[in-house]
Amino acid sequence: MALPAHRPVLDYLHRHQERYLDELREFLRIPSISALSAHQADVRRAAEWLGARLARAGIHDVRVDETQGHPVVFAQSSFTAERPTLLVYGHYDVQPVDPLDQWVSPPFEPTVRDSILYARGASDDKGQLFMHLMALEAWLSTGVLPVNLKFLFEGEEEIGSPHLGQYIREHQAELAADVALISDTPMMGEELPSICYALRGLATMEIRVSGPSQDLHSGVYGGTVMNPAQALAHLIDTLYDASGRIAVPGFYDQVDPLSDREQSELSQLPFDSEAYKAQLGVPELAGEPGYTPLERLWARPTLDVNGLWSGFTGEGQKTIIPATAHAKLSCRLVPHQDPERILDLLEAHLQHHCPPGVQLHVTHRSGSPASVTSLDHPAVKAAESAIELVYQRPAVHIRMGGSIPVVSDFQETLSVPTVLLGFALPDECFHAPNEHFHLANFYRGAQTVAIFWEKLGATHA
Amino acid sequence: MALPAHRPVLDYLHRHQERYLDELREFLRIPSISALSAHQADVRRAAEWLGARLARAGIHDVRVDETQGHPVVFAQSSFTAERPTLLVYGHYDVQPVDPLDQWVSPPFEPTVRDSILYARGASDDKGQLFMHLMALEAWLSTGVLPVNLKFLFEGEEEIGSPHLGQYIREHQAELAADVALISDTPMMGEELPSICYALRGLATMEIRVSGPSQDLHSGVYGGTVMNPAQALAHLIDTLYDASGRIAVPGFYDQVDPLSDREQSELSQLPFDSEAYKAQLGVPELAGEPGYTPLERLWARPTLDVNGLWSGFTGEGQKTIIPATAHAKLSCRLVPHQDPERILDLLEAHLQHHCPPGVQLHVTHRSGSPASVTSLDHPAVKAAESAIELVYQRPAVHIRMGGSIPVVSDFQETLSVPTVLLGFALPDECFHAPNEHFHLANFYRGAQTVAIFWEKLGATHA
Repeated sequence: MALPAHRPVLDYLHRHQERYLDELREFLRIPSISALSAHQADVRRAAEWLGARLARAGIHDVRVDETQGHPVVFAQSSFTAERPTLLVYGHYDVQPVDPLDQWVSPPFEPTVRDSILYARGASDDKGQLFMHLMALEAWLSTGVLPVNLKFLFEGEEEIGSPHLGQYIREHQAELAADVALISDTPMMGEELPSICYALRGLATMEIRVSGPSQDLHSGVYGGTVMNPAQALAHLIDTLYDASGRIAVPGFYDQVDPLSDREQSELSQLPFDSEAYKAQLGVPELAGEPGYTPLERLWARPTLDVNGLWSGFTGEGQKTIIPATAHAKLSCRLVPHQDPERILDLLEAHLQHHCPPGVQLHVTHRSGSPASVTSLDHPAVKAAESAIELVYQRPAVHIRMGGSIPVVSDFQETLSVPTVLLGFALPDECFHAPNEHFHLANFYRGAQTVAIFWEKLGATHA
Repeated sequence: MALPAHRPVLDYLHRHQERYLDELREFLRIPSISALSAHQADVRRAAEWLGARLARAGIHDVRVDETQGHPVVFAQSSFTAERPTLLVYGHYDVQPVDPLDQWVSPPFEPTVRDSILYARGASDDKGQLFMHLMALEAWLSTGVLPVNLKFLFEGEEEIGSPHLGQYIREHQAELAADVALISDTPMMGEELPSICYALRGLATMEIRVSGPSQDLHSGVYGGTVMNPAQALAHLIDTLYDASGRIAVPGFYDQVDPLSDREQSELSQLPFDSEAYKAQLGVPELAGEPGYTPLERLWARPTLDVNGLWSGFTGEGQKTIIPATAHAKLSCRLVPHQDPERILDLLEAHLQHHCPPGVQLHVTHRSGSPASVTSLDHPAVKAAESAIELVYQRPAVHIRMGGSIPVVSDFQETLSVPTVLLGFALPDECFHAPNEHFHLANFYRGAQTVAIFWEKLGATHA
């Protein structure tokens, strides 16, 4: 029986470990803070560094593409029809570093202490992005790539990816792929290498309840008109039943329930309610009855009030009946809820319950569906095999409660499912002082990525 | 049978009509805008003009008293134990005049057109205040005052009377009286001379619902914590039942119902619902079932939301679970509701209904009771007689939905009931451009006041 093709690749990664760390430090020294215009040149310098590094790894085609904002770095291997095509996404921009005085070592002077690399961007996302370049160079230096590769690295993730959607739409054909891989999320825990296969979607709207044509004196007029703030409170209260379920008729109709396997796996994941409550500062947890907190976070839809405003909100008192009352509402959606349908149901429910004497106006509807990749997808299987080989334990399958816009774009614009294979730990201070990355996971991540490609390539045979 | 004592008084008023109008114009020419510091000297000038005018009328004792703000003008007649003592309140300050370009004639150049006097302060309140000086001079010039008189004229009514409460407390003994009279309100309508005998009270509080220690990402955490804005909406919604009644247990317990006579009189007052709805811009009226709009405005308590705020209220979306949610609440109270008791009931109800996972905090409680003067009070009887003599028709008895702080102070600090005898018409543009006062009511008002004193004096015999 022949040795697996990844053997020399892993050897290569091991031999060049020190050089890779030095190169990552070089990458981390560039203060590519996308939010601060003073760092605009640094962001471009990071893009160019990345383009040059991809070229040096030997990939066929590298470009630094202009956008209306910071550049996109795109690269692709030579194409062979027999191989599956993998789209790799990452971002080379980083968060601002305030408060600077809380950093033990300067954010842009990468420092290793106790086998942990400290720097802004170490885990989010330069360190995780760089693992893919290491795997690329190792494969190209030792054999033949087992997959067609496309790299999409943006410089605006930390400012909400304002130009990425357009870039993806404009480069739809070029970005065509069988599956996408992103390493920009944490693992469930230190000994819990994780495959994230589903994200929740989002549906939002703004509502305005309007009553009298102007604020009224509550003494002179109180008792004869419906108070818009009271009406708004009533409308919001009708959205939930006494148990905590969402009371909008049809809201749960399209929800794809967890499979027995998913439910069973999810029930085995650790969740420390006491620690969670202490972290959030709440006396008790809440939510839909009949589901565990992780089920509620990952596999059940929600409806939250994000903002409320009406009438007089300053210091002191102004005893008015406000002319209007406003709320911002948002739903987190799960597979297979349709955002437009959910917004329609919500709007119909609110109109139905709107009291006499006021009018309801719905504005700013927007939505994007949940993303899910089947646990039977070859890329999930390939990731499981790779993790088991490297970590010597089975991967856990996780979901996430939030949305990642690029995953929605891949699903909606490219029809490409995404697997999120993150190697950061949940407490590595992304967006905070002393961001760091465990070097053990940095090296194991690169190995996992390299083997994942091999396993994914094999599924196409 | 002897002629009534007021005969020469009315003759005197009639003979000096033109001079009185000239004097009122002089008073109105002083731009005593209390809200604008640029007019501070004008406010003082108006106080001094008033003090001098009172002295010229021949009253025993006149003072211009300093406060922390604008002066109080105090005057009193010589005292005779056999006569009842009447405390007369008015204010010599006026509202600002913006927008100036909408005035047909300049606000401080009093102009008569079609027997209507146009000027800032014509009806609110210099014109109505001056009627009492005319009656004073007429009585002192023609005979013996039928009552002991005390005049309290302030210069800060239009800025919320910030120093009057303290002045009244400090001059409690000096202000002692049997009853107070105020001419600073409108009549019900042109041919409806009115005696206002009751005002609603006020109880206010601010509430804060607090959940997580900071705003949370609604994707990452949504489904596990109670949303404070949702909880606040629920709490507000529990305050009302489906019919529109206030659902706080005990809220209506102390309400003094209208007597059969009051209810009957009130049902005969005009109220044009269609015009009212059009004026307010509401599609339908609302409020407590089983009562007419005037009953709801004047004789039933209310509970209004004056302000709401929580979470993200800017443009766009920020999908958070807010850490806190806030509301300002106020109740209009009727006789004999105790503000402290109402606030206690409200607070207990809210605490009882506060959902798990959040906490409710109540702050900024404040209140003042409703004011009411019995329809059987001698001063009400005296006012009825005076109105009937002058207007040749019976007075209507009205209430008001708002509160007037000085009336509360008279009731609470001095234990003096108040009768509101106003001669302005509801549409005379108080606080707006082209404020005016019908001269017919100016003269009839002075006559009514003069006869009221006589009738009130007679009740003491």
